[in-house]
Amino acid sequence: MPSINPARVLADLNRLRDFGRFKTGVHRPSLSAEHNAACHWFAGRMAEAGLETNIDGIGNVYGVAPGAARRLLTGSHLESQNQAGWLDGPLGVVYGLEAARVINRDPAFAGRAVDVAVWFDEEGHFGNFLGSRSFVDGLADADIDAGVDRTDGRPLRDALGRAGLAGKPRRRVTPAEYIGYLEAHIEQGDWLEAHGLKLGIVTSIVGIWQFRITFAGTQNHAGTTRMAIRRDAGLSCAELCCAIARRFPQVAAERTVWTTGRITLDPGAPSIIPGRAEMLLQVRDADLAVLQRMEGELASLVAASNRAGPCHATLESLRKSYPAVMDATFQAALEAASEAAAPGVHTRMPSGAGHDAQILSKVMPAGMLFVPSIGGISHHWTENTADDDIVTGAQAFATACAALLS
Amino acid sequence: MPSINPARVLADLNRLRDFGRFKTGVHRPSLSAEHNAACHWFAGRMAEAGLETNIDGIGNVYGVAPGAARRLLTGSHLESQNQAGWLDGPLGVVYGLEAARVINRDPAFAGRAVDVAVWFDEEGHFGNFLGSRSFVDGLADADIDAGVDRTDGRPLRDALGRAGLAGKPRRRVTPAEYIGYLEAHIEQGDWLEAHGLKLGIVTSIVGIWQFRITFAGTQNHAGTTRMAIRRDAGLSCAELCCAIARRFPQVAAERTVWTTGRITLDPGAPSIIPGRAEMLLQVRDADLAVLQRMEGELASLVAASNRAGPCHATLESLRKSYPAVMDATFQAALEAASEAAAPGVHTRMPSGAGHDAQILSKVMPAGMLFVPSIGGISHHWTENTADDDIVTGAQAFATACAALLS
Repeated sequence: MPSINPARVLADLNRLRDFGRFKTGVHRPSLSAEHNAACHWFAGRMAEAGLETNIDGIGNVYGVAPGAARRLLTGSHLESQNQAGWLDGPLGVVYGLEAARVINRDPAFAGRAVDVAVWFDEEGHFGNFLGSRSFVDGLADADIDAGVDRTDGRPLRDALGRAGLAGKPRRRVTPAEYIGYLEAHIEQGDWLEAHGLKLGIVTSIVGIWQFRITFAGTQNHAGTTRMAIRRDAGLSCAELCCAIARRFPQVAAERTVWTTGRITLDPGAPSIIPGRAEMLLQVRDADLAVLQRMEGELASLVAASNRAGPCHATLESLRKSYPAVMDATFQAALEAASEAAAPGVHTRMPSGAGHDAQILSKVMPAGMLFVPSIGGISHHWTENTADDDIVTGAQAFATACAALLS
Repeated sequence: MPSINPARVLADLNRLRDFGRFKTGVHRPSLSAEHNAACHWFAGRMAEAGLETNIDGIGNVYGVAPGAARRLLTGSHLESQNQAGWLDGPLGVVYGLEAARVINRDPAFAGRAVDVAVWFDEEGHFGNFLGSRSFVDGLADADIDAGVDRTDGRPLRDALGRAGLAGKPRRRVTPAEYIGYLEAHIEQGDWLEAHGLKLGIVTSIVGIWQFRITFAGTQNHAGTTRMAIRRDAGLSCAELCCAIARRFPQVAAERTVWTTGRITLDPGAPSIIPGRAEMLLQVRDADLAVLQRMEGELASLVAASNRAGPCHATLESLRKSYPAVMDATFQAALEAASEAAAPGVHTRMPSGAGHDAQILSKVMPAGMLFVPSIGGISHHWTENTADDDIVTGAQAFATACAALLS
């Protein structure tokens, strides 16, 4: 069993925190100067570990061990959400690098190696999983043409050009190159912490189904329009939110989650009855049948809203990503490694967040390992994980890599 | 009884529609080029009618009959809401001008006269009733310094300067100058139309009480945060909206209205549980006791929301304008004039919208006359009133002016 170097893992993670430091977290959007610098620094660390490094035309950073016949791919990402946490992404690439360090030069693993990939834009500043999709299924050029930074509107092509990546080819995997893909990540929820656990072996990554419900009412004067004749789109929207909150718990599975993250009333003025309202509802579950059941319930609630009136609600499906099941062999390897690193304090669990592993799982066996998030917080600069837990995870990850390559 | 000239009234109103024409309505925000041009054109029409005209330092346009001892003030406004109706404001100033035309030069009214005022910014682009407040209670210079256009952020001082009004004195009324103030306006609601009526005699102008309710929850990841531990500020906000919709009808008076015109979820992203939400609630009634009762109910609902949890709601009062009762003598004069112009098809009614008459009523007797709004529509370019109804209103208005001056 390879032994990782705890101080080296923590030092690399802390060094990465310097790129775009924001309070105790980082602000490192995709293709920002700080993100580009982090990628170049990390490429240098991979080169020091004996990996051949390359950044391709979509900004993926690869570290490839020369000459190995049997390879395991590891990876995660280096950009962050805006003003967010220091471990969301970096944890996985540093674990991969550490596994490569301790395995690739070990004579016992001759001819076998860990490669490392830094996937571009897992956090979705310019699109959806652009880096891993480019690697797996050859993302269309048109998708890159269409990409704009959701914060500042900068076109993806311009940002790639300024990073020196214009015209570079994009690497596309031949699945036979790898025995599979292993990714580590912070949990981002509080399941591990709340249950006193140190490691999570991901069974599947949730599907995310996103809907827009639009309410058409009648815009009118808030002072002169009698209550009896109003068609207040905002009120209809609020009532559907409440109906969902009453009904969904009755039909959801244990870990189903749903969120109304945005409500917009139009025109949004205090003296005008909203003539139009819109809400974005997202449902996540690791079981396709549950997602289908929830969608059916949502359609029923929208139909009931329309029967009740007075506004008309329209339900649209905006996005459906399907649950991604992790490979059974990879789950077993992670579980055995977890038992070795943290006896009795690990569990199998679904991932409520999306990860590049769901994209890689389309073409090769994939697995994921979680470490606890303090207070379940993520996508916020206070996101954190105890140093001891980071080290335990790094050891379990390297052990699982070694086992899968054996 | 003076006879108005129907063609002249309609021609003036249609000429005003040319300033900032938008579809069948107008886009004529306060101190826009179109609004300034409309004010200058109207000043010219007042001069033709023998009134001495002046535009003061806040942009109020005055037409004063020379030499009269007993005076009635009339008025309304010439700016519009953005992309709104052609009669909201202009109707009242043209009625005032027409009454001045037919009364001031009539030897039977020697020594008595109708004056006309165009109040600045009744529509609130830069503040609240800035023009009439300046006239009545001498609006502080600091309020003008603080004014910015709510659409484009242009400072009021800059806009006044560009209109050539910088440094001009502001006229402040001595209440004894006038026997009172009379204003005509489109109803902006559908009460008259729905009841087959042609004229409304305003009994009082509603008080408007505006509240902000802020919900503090916990922002977190929409995929990894279990439903059981969420503190979703958006959901708490929606639930309060629904609680208001259930409870308020049980305690409201016949014409009480309330509106949630704006809801904001923060950060407003589909994958993030809102950590903060805000709603603006406005309540209007012509009876102070009703407003106080509604505020008490709102406080109870917010307290109930806080007892239920999991988010904390804070109720703030943003604005309280008090109901303004119209003068009994003015109501009687308008009712008699309405019976003469439209026998049997008029009613006494409160005004659900705010008007400059509520400001003038603080210092002198005031009255208001309403004409029907087709479909109850206002603050939209489709706002309209039948020509016949416009003419009927103009006649009733002039008759009431004459009666009050007798």
